[in-house]
Amino acid sequence: MPLWLGIDIGGTKLGLALGDDTGAIRARQRRPAALTGRAADDVAAIAADAKGLLARAPEPVAGVGVAVPGPMDPERGLVLDPPNLAGWEEVPIREQLADALGLPVWIENDANAAALAEWRFGAGRGAQHVVYLTMSTGIGAGLVLGGRLHRGQAFGAGEVGHIPLLDDGPTCGCGLRGCFEALCGGASWTRRLREVTPPESRAATLAGGPDAVRPEHVVEAARAGDAFARAELDRFNQHLARAIVTLGFILAPEVVVLGTIPTAAGDALCLDPVRERVRARLWPLLARGLAIEPSALGEALPDYAGLCVALEGSAGAS
Amino acid sequence: MPLWLGIDIGGTKLGLALGDDTGAIRARQRRPAALTGRAADDVAAIAADAKGLLARAPEPVAGVGVAVPGPMDPERGLVLDPPNLAGWEEVPIREQLADALGLPVWIENDANAAALAEWRFGAGRGAQHVVYLTMSTGIGAGLVLGGRLHRGQAFGAGEVGHIPLLDDGPTCGCGLRGCFEALCGGASWTRRLREVTPPESRAATLAGGPDAVRPEHVVEAARAGDAFARAELDRFNQHLARAIVTLGFILAPEVVVLGTIPTAAGDALCLDPVRERVRARLWPLLARGLAIEPSALGEALPDYAGLCVALEGSAGAS
Repeated sequence: MPLWLGIDIGGTKLGLALGDDTGAIRARQRRPAALTGRAADDVAAIAADAKGLLARAPEPVAGVGVAVPGPMDPERGLVLDPPNLAGWEEVPIREQLADALGLPVWIENDANAAALAEWRFGAGRGAQHVVYLTMSTGIGAGLVLGGRLHRGQAFGAGEVGHIPLLDDGPTCGCGLRGCFEALCGGASWTRRLREVTPPESRAATLAGGPDAVRPEHVVEAARAGDAFARAELDRFNQHLARAIVTLGFILAPEVVVLGTIPTAAGDALCLDPVRERVRARLWPLLARGLAIEPSALGEALPDYAGLCVALEGSAGAS
Repeated sequence: MPLWLGIDIGGTKLGLALGDDTGAIRARQRRPAALTGRAADDVAAIAADAKGLLARAPEPVAGVGVAVPGPMDPERGLVLDPPNLAGWEEVPIREQLADALGLPVWIENDANAAALAEWRFGAGRGAQHVVYLTMSTGIGAGLVLGGRLHRGQAFGAGEVGHIPLLDDGPTCGCGLRGCFEALCGGASWTRRLREVTPPESRAATLAGGPDAVRPEHVVEAARAGDAFARAELDRFNQHLARAIVTLGFILAPEVVVLGTIPTAAGDALCLDPVRERVRARLWPLLARGLAIEPSALGEALPDYAGLCVALEGSAGAS
């Protein structure tokens, strides 16, 4: 069975892994991204690490899959100008890595790569219709529909962080108001928390003051029964459930996989209340067949993201 | 080139047509649905009409496509229990028609069939990602994504009429509040109009009183400049635009095709204002490649819906 090299490029971390079609990971490596601000140097360093791992491959490697932040162009193999990759602008990373490594290379945006990974080897295994919701600093989605990645025109599908949930909601990082991300994204929520957290709340104590509160403090304080934190998490759950209901009516997925914040908050604080709210709003026909699950790959996701891009690319993703 | 027989079964009308792969319609027939309340009799009557048309076919007919109201099961070939087909319950129409006509038969729900028709021969021609929004009594959608129909689990995708647009909006026919259909569906809008139309407005005059106002009176009155009617249409446009923005961020379609009410209201009153609102809210990357178009098939849609179900079925729709 051939191996595939997966590369996961993030703003803070670089992950590389060798795996096979069954999802068995044979070797892995992680390091800080250590971006230089010069894309050519960054890509050269990534290629050097990749060569090192390829040299240790126990079996032939058939190709390389790369997960990168968007915006990007998987057809032309370009990373365009992601806000968290300083100095990267129209970087032809597919060609550069193919030249350096002598292997076919496919690239995909990180949300789509994560969706492919959870679909093939995680919480969406065995399903045909999977939505992966990445809920950390920002919110995005990858959509696997009918067993295929749905990218949409301009590869723009899955920008679910910006569906309008409230008319007069808070302003989003994108400049619009009331976006799902402005309500449930880590960056927006953190901004809000620093304004509204009472100094006497457990979340403020855990953080060392309201000015330093982050979502993880709210999760921990809610777990300890703090009333303010529970109300904040309830508000988060309410908006998240509404977004899932919207996705449910439009797409009828079998699984919605939730990454990061909901996974950290866990079943009792987030997932069960969200499941209940979704069941109360989505038609029974649609809710019955819909599982709402935390990411199954979790911290291991970077080992699978690039691998799954390679598996999808070699199978001829459209 | 073989011909295909398309059958469009509605609550009020039955349409049959013979056409080929290029969308050339070679024969057509329409009649009132004349439903008896007994599904077996209704299907027998449809089969008799189909036989009559097949007998006049100028060339061999390769198969039959049927568009039916949902809920239905395209894989088992069953019409379940559509509210507008009285007495139909778990009707195995695929098998019944296949036996009666001696041809392969495929069935599909009417919104999906309309989406296929607009994608192959109408406003979505040449695109890969097309959303067809049927906006008459109720609201539904058919989704063609990556050149394939997306049905979702339980064949439930496209129930966009029930995405929650307002927290405290009017109650929908489905029992929930603030659904897109509760705001923009013909039945809900008519109920509202009869409550809020001022007796002195042109819409009331056209209808013969506020109690008889229907959406088409509002469209006509708005065209004549009536202030109340213009405000009502503006409200309709605002909610419609928000639903399209939601679909735009999630799916990144190339074309959203609008049927019935928006088509009747036309460019100046509805489509241009909706396009403008969508452009103001959807990211430029997504808005640039998105066309918002009235149905191109319009009154001829029933001639193409069943035909396209046959074309899709014979090509092996998943």
